[in-house]
Amino acid sequence: MAKPEKHVFVCSHIHPPELGRPSCGACGGKDVAGAFYQQLKERELLGRFAITRTGCLGACSAGPVALVYPEGLMYGKLKPEDVATIIDEHLLGNQPVERLKVSAEVWG
Amino acid sequence: MAKPEKHVFVCSHIHPPELGRPSCGACGGKDVAGAFYQQLKERELLGRFAITRTGCLGACSAGPVALVYPEGLMYGKLKPEDVATIIDEHLLGNQPVERLKVSAEVWG
Repeated sequence: MAKPEKHVFVCSHIHPPELGRPSCGACGGKDVAGAFYQQLKERELLGRFAITRTGCLGACSAGPVALVYPEGLMYGKLKPEDVATIIDEHLLGNQPVERLKVSAEVWG
Repeated sequence: MAKPEKHVFVCSHIHPPELGRPSCGACGGKDVAGAFYQQLKERELLGRFAITRTGCLGACSAGPVALVYPEGLMYGKLKPEDVATIIDEHLLGNQPVERLKVSAEVWG
């Protein structure tokens, strides 16, 4: 596997119910991860860009979250319909999608 | 959560047996992830550095693997006793541990 230009990490963690924390994996994170994989595959962009599901990224209140490296930029409250925008504007266009970024208190 | 100086991603994925692929999560990846977490916590380095478990990173033959961003540098065939070296030399000292890096065919 070649080192990708950008690597998208999508939290799909589900906390045990007794923790009482919101969980990316229970509020759409799996759908967001699936949308990234499907769209990158369909557009033949897998390899140039990578998508990986993760355990908890510590930003549970902002979920579902995705973290893009090497920038270390985090997006939150994502819906599958946001994925094409992130691919077009950030991954391909190198312009972070400001309206989807989490606040600096969450990650910054 | 503050954006960390460096973020360590450790694969702990387990493939379905019918795939017949080696799995980081079945050959020590979970112990390596646990060692990172425990040692960063004990040394009060969590926050400055982050550790996250992941799904498959696509380098199954080199497992267990850990990927360090923002460099995008991958280590392989890790054992829990390698973790202190990576923390000391790479995370704190900014010097990648050459002997633990995966080959360029795997990731590069």
